[in-house]
Amino acid sequence: MLTGPHGPSCGAFRLQPAAAGVDARLQIRSPQQTYHPSLPHPITNTQSVIMPTMKAVAFTPGPVSGLHIIEHERPTATGRDILVRIKAISVNPVDTKCRQGKFPADPVLGWDAAGIVAECGPEVTRWKVGDEVMYAGALGRQGTNAQFSVVDERIVGRKPKNWDWADAASLPLVGLTAWELLIDHFNLSLDKPNPGTLLIINGAGGVGTAAAQLASRVLKIPRVISTASRPETIAWCKQNGATDTIDHHKPLDTQLKELGVENVEYNAVLYGPTPGYVEQLIKTAAPRGKIGSIVESDDPIPLADAFSKALSFSWVFMLSRPMYNHDLEFQGEALDKMATLAEEGVLTSFATEKYKFTIENLRKIHQLLESGKAIGKQVLVLEDDDITEA
Amino acid sequence: MLTGPHGPSCGAFRLQPAAAGVDARLQIRSPQQTYHPSLPHPITNTQSVIMPTMKAVAFTPGPVSGLHIIEHERPTATGRDILVRIKAISVNPVDTKCRQGKFPADPVLGWDAAGIVAECGPEVTRWKVGDEVMYAGALGRQGTNAQFSVVDERIVGRKPKNWDWADAASLPLVGLTAWELLIDHFNLSLDKPNPGTLLIINGAGGVGTAAAQLASRVLKIPRVISTASRPETIAWCKQNGATDTIDHHKPLDTQLKELGVENVEYNAVLYGPTPGYVEQLIKTAAPRGKIGSIVESDDPIPLADAFSKALSFSWVFMLSRPMYNHDLEFQGEALDKMATLAEEGVLTSFATEKYKFTIENLRKIHQLLESGKAIGKQVLVLEDDDITEA
Repeated sequence: MLTGPHGPSCGAFRLQPAAAGVDARLQIRSPQQTYHPSLPHPITNTQSVIMPTMKAVAFTPGPVSGLHIIEHERPTATGRDILVRIKAISVNPVDTKCRQGKFPADPVLGWDAAGIVAECGPEVTRWKVGDEVMYAGALGRQGTNAQFSVVDERIVGRKPKNWDWADAASLPLVGLTAWELLIDHFNLSLDKPNPGTLLIINGAGGVGTAAAQLASRVLKIPRVISTASRPETIAWCKQNGATDTIDHHKPLDTQLKELGVENVEYNAVLYGPTPGYVEQLIKTAAPRGKIGSIVESDDPIPLADAFSKALSFSWVFMLSRPMYNHDLEFQGEALDKMATLAEEGVLTSFATEKYKFTIENLRKIHQLLESGKAIGKQVLVLEDDDITEA
Repeated sequence: MLTGPHGPSCGAFRLQPAAAGVDARLQIRSPQQTYHPSLPHPITNTQSVIMPTMKAVAFTPGPVSGLHIIEHERPTATGRDILVRIKAISVNPVDTKCRQGKFPADPVLGWDAAGIVAECGPEVTRWKVGDEVMYAGALGRQGTNAQFSVVDERIVGRKPKNWDWADAASLPLVGLTAWELLIDHFNLSLDKPNPGTLLIINGAGGVGTAAAQLASRVLKIPRVISTASRPETIAWCKQNGATDTIDHHKPLDTQLKELGVENVEYNAVLYGPTPGYVEQLIKTAAPRGKIGSIVESDDPIPLADAFSKALSFSWVFMLSRPMYNHDLEFQGEALDKMATLAEEGVLTSFATEKYKFTIENLRKIHQLLESGKAIGKQVLVLEDDDITEA
């Protein structure tokens, strides 16, 4: 397990030890190590002079009050990295887990941004200064809660032309998670019809929103059943492509039966605990059905009853590719495809709330995500390229 | 869990409760239920008159001495079933598990046969009387340890023309298991190259033999590493397509490292315990790698450390399709494709031992399989269409 700046990971989120082939950037510095960056030089992009320092939001592990603005050296783009002037960001559950100290992260959180390319590393081929982009980024690097961040060009996609910065920032992490869930793990096809039923546990969250849209509008799965229990979450699920909703507070099998669904080919666990949901989903899974979960668990997975149906279980973790520096192009290409789908009106924004990027608003969104009641995506916009206290 | 003729399943092999949509044939009769078959009529095929009764081998749960010849009503073909005059059979670990009473089965065991179609049900379209076929069959039906058995035509393939009965009987169950492992679960392509590495735990067994041949000769996986520890098993693995062997009695990760293999895309667990091997394989699995196991386990699967790599785990169970009456055509088509590959010399016989079908030889093969030392497949031939004591 990695030891981060705030001590060893203590929660459910377990990282693999860094091994040969793993991106060296994962070797997060401990606080004891002195950090002497070569001072960045001021550079010019199409908009303005970029100063050698910038504002960013750091955290101290614990409650949301630990989120605070710092002056931070502006990173520089080397190798295949691009430097992006950030226009908007969104917040994901991974941010709150890092803030709680559940697993190690750079002191600057944030895994979603839309912005403008400000500088290109010498090996960059996909982008040029001034391009409008969106990306989720990587664990173990400075996050997007800042005025600038650097990111490997291969995991960056272009911003949909007809989406504003906030809408674009709502897409990458949940869009890529849903894409990898459905296309990588469930092996659904972009080129031909995909018969069957998809069941989404927690349909109204960010990944649930993206998965329902992709499943119904892009992959044309005829039946997309999302779990939701409140009128507003039910409405949001249906608006985003769910053909039916059921209540995750009640037994799933009887509700599926009432819908006339005998078995479910594709089962997405987007809310934990994973072992408990797996036990339920095995009962209604179709023979050779698939279960994918984004909710990490230290507990083993109870799969004994899945044998006779020859079921599969997959962990879905969008940050895995950048973590292992593995098949990075897949993510840039997927984001570009989703940008096209957004421009065609097939995908619609996942954002439900857009605010000015202030510490106060960031704290509120962390709290909303921790409540488990968030619907869609919450986005923060850097007005005048700035991050402020309130 | 099903209750079979010998009481409830008590072992590791756990069956799903019969549910709507599950083949009704799985509702195995309890000994208390009276059984009044309509007496079969004598019929004629191209070879001989078929009598209304036949010889079969029944078992009483326990040691191999419980295997004994009985006079059994000859089944008749109805619906999409064909009646097959059996020429050769092979034995699989599932036979020994049933015999030990670990899970319910018809009193006549056996899930591999090659033979001649003797009668066709009224809805049969794929076969005619006199066709030479091979099949694995289904749980919950009379098995192939008999002079005749009936089988759904959709899970039957044609016998390779240039293979004898014994060689043909060596193929279906392990061939289909390897086929479903590699093509269904690992999603490898028959039409384009499949880069990467396949690691086979227990390369010399029946499924390991079939998997190595398919992986190296058909799917063109460049590196196929089988575990084997004895000179004869190492030789057999290499003869069947393994590019390397390692010893499953020693830590796998260090041996893979010595071979220069940093990570493994495809991991096949063909020998238990599954949880223990999964823990080892996670360490060396490639990001988004796949683990498939044919070894059922009541214990949950320790997948916590698989999260950051976004790994998948699949149960592979060839008898699942017939059990759930689901996508049966897949198996008949796969067997036909393997017959063509056999005729082209791409696949070679999995049989290592061929004997006359006597009770004595059947008992010896059960014991060999239970020892865990079997290499390839053991086949029994019905000389003069007969089963004898010795």
